[in-house]
Amino acid sequence: MFETLNIKTSSRIEMVDITDKIASLISKQNISSGICYLFVPHTAAGITINENADFTVQLDINSKLSKLIPPGNHYSHLEGNSDSHIKSTVVGSSLNIIIDKNRPVLGTWQGIYFCEFDGPRNRDLYIKLIEG
Amino acid sequence: MFETLNIKTSSRIEMVDITDKIASLISKQNISSGICYLFVPHTAAGITINENADFTVQLDINSKLSKLIPPGNHYSHLEGNSDSHIKSTVVGSSLNIIIDKNRPVLGTWQGIYFCEFDGPRNRDLYIKLIEG
Amino acid sequence: MFETLNIKTSSRIEMVDITDKIASLISKQNISSGICYLFVPHTAAGITINENADFTVQLDINSKLSKLIPPGNHYSHLEGNSDSHIKSTVVGSSLNIIIDKNRPVLGTWQGIYFCEFDGPRNRDLYIKLIEG
Repeated sequence: MFETLNIKTSSRIEMVDITDKIASLISKQNISSGICYLFVPHTAAGITINENADFTVQLDINSKLSKLIPPGNHYSHLEGNSDSHIKSTVVGSSLNIIIDKNRPVLGTWQGIYFCEFDGPRNRDLYIKLIEG
Repeated sequence: MFETLNIKTSSRIEMVDITDKIASLISKQNISSGICYLFVPHTAAGITINENADFTVQLDINSKLSKLIPPGNHYSHLEGNSDSHIKSTVVGSSLNIIIDKNRPVLGTWQGIYFCEFDGPRNRDLYIKLIEG
Repeated sequence: MFETLNIKTSSRIEMVDITDKIASLISKQNISSGICYLFVPHTAAGITINENADFTVQLDINSKLSKLIPPGNHYSHLEGNSDSHIKSTVVGSSLNIIIDKNRPVLGTWQGIYFCEFDGPRNRDLYIKLIEG
């Protein structure tokens, strides 16, 4: 199974919770155990797993990333989004999740987040499921 | 094979060498070649690979992470561990290691480390092995 | 398939584009669909995916990493390359790419980069392909 999930972001920097969509895809494919591979095909976005309970954690992550890697025109790259590219390399663009009993195995407080670093845009996320 | 490794951490921020435990699990399962998937089901911890020879490398990693992302109450999230969540996203919560000849394929100086960012706690690490 | 790619780096810090070499390996192995696992067996290097169009993005990534994590002798580790080890943990040493129709599935602007953080050196990259 190789599929594309479309994600519409609404801010320049934003974490979009995609946990339910990934769980639903796994459930539909009826894969009892295996691996779910997530891949971001963009160079100014990323993917991470973090707390799903208190929304302020996402604010703190983005605020700290932008304090360490601020947007601006003091970079060599002239498109004004060098900070977005650097954030993408720091956060990462691929992730694996273990599948067991037909669902993604996550900790109690974990959600899967698509990280927009240069939005708002229409984004894709590639998803591949392999049984095993 | 899908198993949970229990890890007891003893400091707020600490790297725990789990290389031997992972190697032993692979050896017991008698998987000659494949992939070992490691997944941290916590949002204030991470996993990384780094130098296993000189302990000061771990001190430098944690010291620099805490200088860039200091603990404190100046964050929006009110539980006092926003720095731990941010460190988790920067370091990452999943990792793969190639299995060959019934052992994890690592470089000479590489060890696998569970990264505690909000300890001391009892932690879990999920491990899945797939042949291929 | 488990293979080693040799990479010769020419600076202390440098991103080497290995996209064509990975694509060529996948093409030769005639794997129509599956996963390509990339693993860096060094503790002062990493692997990332980022923009392949404008070379200045690489300069900005390395310049910002070295501003946040500068080289120097103010670390505990006495070999003078603590910054390289820390950069390795921040950027990461493993990556997966989805294989579809006998080629790596990447976004339009994405290239795969071996990140040298303590060169120049002769480096290895481990590559494993699994069908599925």
